[in-house]
Amino acid sequence: MVGQQFIALLAGHPWFRVAWLGASQRSEGKAYRDAAAWRLAAPLPGDVAGMTVDGATPGRAPRLVFSGLDSAVAGDVEAAFAAAGHVVVSNARNYRMEPTVPLLIPEINADHLALAAAQRAALGWPGLIVTNPNCAVVVLAMTLAPLRAFGLSKAAVTTMQAVSGAGYPGVPSWDILANVIPHIGGGEEDKVEAEPGKILGRVNSGAIDPHPVVISATTTRVPVRDGHTGSIAVALEEQPPLEAVIEAWSAFRGEPQALELPSAPPRPLVYLPEANRPQPALDAGRDRGMAVSVGRLRRCPILGYKFVALGHNTIRGAAGAAILNAELMHRRELV
Amino acid sequence: MVGQQFIALLAGHPWFRVAWLGASQRSEGKAYRDAAAWRLAAPLPGDVAGMTVDGATPGRAPRLVFSGLDSAVAGDVEAAFAAAGHVVVSNARNYRMEPTVPLLIPEINADHLALAAAQRAALGWPGLIVTNPNCAVVVLAMTLAPLRAFGLSKAAVTTMQAVSGAGYPGVPSWDILANVIPHIGGGEEDKVEAEPGKILGRVNSGAIDPHPVVISATTTRVPVRDGHTGSIAVALEEQPPLEAVIEAWSAFRGEPQALELPSAPPRPLVYLPEANRPQPALDAGRDRGMAVSVGRLRRCPILGYKFVALGHNTIRGAAGAAILNAELMHRRELV
Amino acid sequence: MVGQQFIALLAGHPWFRVAWLGASQRSEGKAYRDAAAWRLAAPLPGDVAGMTVDGATPGRAPRLVFSGLDSAVAGDVEAAFAAAGHVVVSNARNYRMEPTVPLLIPEINADHLALAAAQRAALGWPGLIVTNPNCAVVVLAMTLAPLRAFGLSKAAVTTMQAVSGAGYPGVPSWDILANVIPHIGGGEEDKVEAEPGKILGRVNSGAIDPHPVVISATTTRVPVRDGHTGSIAVALEEQPPLEAVIEAWSAFRGEPQALELPSAPPRPLVYLPEANRPQPALDAGRDRGMAVSVGRLRRCPILGYKFVALGHNTIRGAAGAAILNAELMHRRELV
Amino acid sequence: MVGQQFIALLAGHPWFRVAWLGASQRSEGKAYRDAAAWRLAAPLPGDVAGMTVDGATPGRAPRLVFSGLDSAVAGDVEAAFAAAGHVVVSNARNYRMEPTVPLLIPEINADHLALAAAQRAALGWPGLIVTNPNCAVVVLAMTLAPLRAFGLSKAAVTTMQAVSGAGYPGVPSWDILANVIPHIGGGEEDKVEAEPGKILGRVNSGAIDPHPVVISATTTRVPVRDGHTGSIAVALEEQPPLEAVIEAWSAFRGEPQALELPSAPPRPLVYLPEANRPQPALDAGRDRGMAVSVGRLRRCPILGYKFVALGHNTIRGAAGAAILNAELMHRRELV
Repeated sequence: MVGQQFIALLAGHPWFRVAWLGASQRSEGKAYRDAAAWRLAAPLPGDVAGMTVDGATPGRAPRLVFSGLDSAVAGDVEAAFAAAGHVVVSNARNYRMEPTVPLLIPEINADHLALAAAQRAALGWPGLIVTNPNCAVVVLAMTLAPLRAFGLSKAAVTTMQAVSGAGYPGVPSWDILANVIPHIGGGEEDKVEAEPGKILGRVNSGAIDPHPVVISATTTRVPVRDGHTGSIAVALEEQPPLEAVIEAWSAFRGEPQALELPSAPPRPLVYLPEANRPQPALDAGRDRGMAVSVGRLRRCPILGYKFVALGHNTIRGAAGAAILNAELMHRRELV
Repeated sequence: MVGQQFIALLAGHPWFRVAWLGASQRSEGKAYRDAAAWRLAAPLPGDVAGMTVDGATPGRAPRLVFSGLDSAVAGDVEAAFAAAGHVVVSNARNYRMEPTVPLLIPEINADHLALAAAQRAALGWPGLIVTNPNCAVVVLAMTLAPLRAFGLSKAAVTTMQAVSGAGYPGVPSWDILANVIPHIGGGEEDKVEAEPGKILGRVNSGAIDPHPVVISATTTRVPVRDGHTGSIAVALEEQPPLEAVIEAWSAFRGEPQALELPSAPPRPLVYLPEANRPQPALDAGRDRGMAVSVGRLRRCPILGYKFVALGHNTIRGAAGAAILNAELMHRRELV
Repeated sequence: MVGQQFIALLAGHPWFRVAWLGASQRSEGKAYRDAAAWRLAAPLPGDVAGMTVDGATPGRAPRLVFSGLDSAVAGDVEAAFAAAGHVVVSNARNYRMEPTVPLLIPEINADHLALAAAQRAALGWPGLIVTNPNCAVVVLAMTLAPLRAFGLSKAAVTTMQAVSGAGYPGVPSWDILANVIPHIGGGEEDKVEAEPGKILGRVNSGAIDPHPVVISATTTRVPVRDGHTGSIAVALEEQPPLEAVIEAWSAFRGEPQALELPSAPPRPLVYLPEANRPQPALDAGRDRGMAVSVGRLRRCPILGYKFVALGHNTIRGAAGAAILNAELMHRRELV
Repeated sequence: MVGQQFIALLAGHPWFRVAWLGASQRSEGKAYRDAAAWRLAAPLPGDVAGMTVDGATPGRAPRLVFSGLDSAVAGDVEAAFAAAGHVVVSNARNYRMEPTVPLLIPEINADHLALAAAQRAALGWPGLIVTNPNCAVVVLAMTLAPLRAFGLSKAAVTTMQAVSGAGYPGVPSWDILANVIPHIGGGEEDKVEAEPGKILGRVNSGAIDPHPVVISATTTRVPVRDGHTGSIAVALEEQPPLEAVIEAWSAFRGEPQALELPSAPPRPLVYLPEANRPQPALDAGRDRGMAVSVGRLRRCPILGYKFVALGHNTIRGAAGAAILNAELMHRRELV
């Protein structure tokens, strides 16, 4: 799913052009259109359809490589590319928590790119690996970032995640039709609890001091095609009025907006005042899937504040996130 | 939905027989089969199908009356029946928080029936009104009841509720197909935050001292037919090991089990050890829809403990709950 | 649903601008944004959001009026507008089978606009009513039009229709979640059996000689958001090879393509060679919802040929159809 | 799915008891509860849960063996069991069209068991293989059987099939959520077109003379959990009134009813007069999933008659069908 979303989003991109495709041996040597059935409503770009799929090894690949690899293989493959001098913009989880690998959300922590030098020193390769967060983490981290100003200390989240987040074939339909599965494999809850601290942290002499926020996550799967929803409660040391929180979200901007990066949404966070929003079917695609929607902010009698947030998991939470990372790096002349 | 579920559950009941049906003027005088299309998979009992629907007024009704009325009319109608000497076993919300009206879950608070005398005195009627909780509350309260022994002080819940909970026609399909609606109207979250304290409380000279538990609720609608799921976190003053909590749930029994009431599930709470349970499609119907399923107990870094619970909303959370209440009252000779 | 789709599609239209909104008394006088909740993923255009809704009466309305009215009121209201000199481009069923009212699919029967003079004479009004077909008919008629050349004589169709076709609130979610309803009210099957003959017919001295095709329809509702699918079998007097049929579909073009109307899809019919297409989730939105997708052409041992077709019911089958009709009329200087 | 359904249906069976389980090498030696996650709402019987799974080879197996094997392996495995003297009651497709193998629906063709002697002679084994039809065929063949009396000559069917029919993991959720897939792999349409003729045929000196009915099938997948629906049109040489057809269905009984077999539904075909039935969510489970529901009989302007039929695909269309076959054979002392 993520690989196809990369290709759909890169069609007509003003800066990048798909010049090479690498995959496992099973697909190597095939035309892309024959390597796997196209499963998105957006059309398969004609020029990519006919490209021959290469192996997942450096050599013929251009300098910038996007990785939507499964974590079972991403570790070795991405290291091989970095060792061969490539800039790897990865959606895989393998290197996210590596101290010198940036775990980027450009609106929040564009300055984490400063880790590049430390990474080359620590890992001994001429290339670079930069990662984006887990798809459920993006929604959470984006809404938490502006709350640091109010003394964010705790966040509890229950997610309701779309089936596209499990890849393809992913969740069997028998398991999810008219059902909820209250568990997501692969350590999903651990990632949601661990990644935001690093994302929200500060660069400190070649490493990240994580933001001190305690997170508790329950992750569930629901019969939704695209869009991860989170029911979130937070503790803020200051006790701002609700309006101030909404204002902080609405005013939130970052480097992508300042630099007018091609994939940047005009407003990274959009607060919806209607009582029954955000909803995946209506809001996941906001601003080409790159804006995170927030709603239902109200008092929580336990933690202080609660709200609902939503983002498009294969765009803002995966392929679009990686492309935004590459756009930032391109403007910073790291690519 | 609840009215039909009453009729389905009472078919072949060993103690009760449907002898009278009352509804709004729109249905009055019609045969039941013609008053509204039957929408359950369980068959419409032939004897009820041909009964003529009466108005929602006392007179021809027998002493015991079940009420699945909409809250817009339940207040006046139920009072009229109680004033006419009927025992009203109600699923409506109107009298739940009335100080002298029992808000019953027989496994938890069968002793709350002691309010009957105070109710007659306070409300001045010869009959009686007894209520069951909101459909989402049953799941929460059942799992919280055994936790009082560990010093239960806080509970945060995000629900994922089935469409049958909204009645009929209820949620338009456009709103919920492959979607999540992060809001349920009619004050659902207020009910979930308010009712458990009373349910878990103690009778104290004709009134209930509520259990001191702070509850925070977010209620959402998901594309599920039957079964409300809750992602729940709790604070317990004692810090029991996880095994002790599971043991407390598994050992939990109440009056319905002691009295072997016809609708009583053998075990009110069933803990499922599998990582991905409970699920509405597999677990909502457990023990004819009367058992609450629990799973995924684990540590919560914020409140201490978290888990997932599930119950059948139109059976354990509505019609089945009311019938169990009536069975208890029958054995206590209140009916 | 259709009214909102009209507004979404007219946002940024090169020729038309929403200048007036009329609705029933319940909405009259309200700002459009307050008259009904916006239910599409496409944004509500800001200029329309603030417009005040007028009554459904002529007077302040501009000459061209789109009607997405319910059939219960469309008859009188549309007649009143036509009598007041308006050109009414209607999606309602009331006048579709009226002998002098064009039932237009511009790719098929743009020449049916020649009925305009006869209509004014017959119905005695200075304005004009032009209609588009039922949403399930468009898919069928589009695929049948090129088959007239092969001696089309019979067509049997079983539809699987999306919930948006029932409007809002439309189908209750309890009825359709993980279910199929093998019936659609409002005479759906009669419309599917009756309308194509007129659409495919010829103008003959101020009336339409219908195309002699016998149609049998079974219409069902499935849990799909947008996109009506038809399983279609046809009898053709000639026995063309399958390739010739595919070629006839693929080569099919009409006035909208010749005139390059703004809403015209480049190819009205797109044949998909994959064995498992078309699918509503992937194909309904093709060419902004204006192209009909066809697939699975093969021999039928009973009628001769069978295939599957799909179109977007609220765009190609309703609002987009009407807008395309108006574009054609604008170019013909009828508006 | 079918294997689990076998175990669920055999729990508490009055004549049969699960004494042995065979599966592929991957499961061999494991306790059944560990070999595959249990995925039905019905509970996994405790005695079967702990049984050790054997290999799929004769030896320790009892005489009667049910086979829910995948067709990729069923051919060899079932032949090996028959060669070893077992009676194999199979749900696999491999031997269904073999001339001397009964393709049984006991209500229709209990007399086809007379092929047993011819099978032993032709295939040279001491055992016996008996099959039940494809899950979509059962629904069609059951409704066609009583129509032979009216000169049944043609039947066109479009199916809307549940995801459980594809087994597990089966259809990926991304492909089917809020979608229709107009194609089912594995030659589904060929089976639907071929099997009914044999089922409806007559034994003639050790072989079956098929009933001369021409069938055209389009098979589709819809987001339904259980229950295959068919939109069916038929040509009947006689032109009976609709009431006569309904009467023929309603009066239909066969050997299972005469013999009061434990799994026999009291009425194999139940005609529902409501305009919008049968529906999978309401009707698939009728009579423990063993009755086929029919509705919407009306005139078809092309073939003469059309209607909608529905049956539970993993019960009446698979495991329940096989068990009914075995019950018939038990009473005939073939087991």
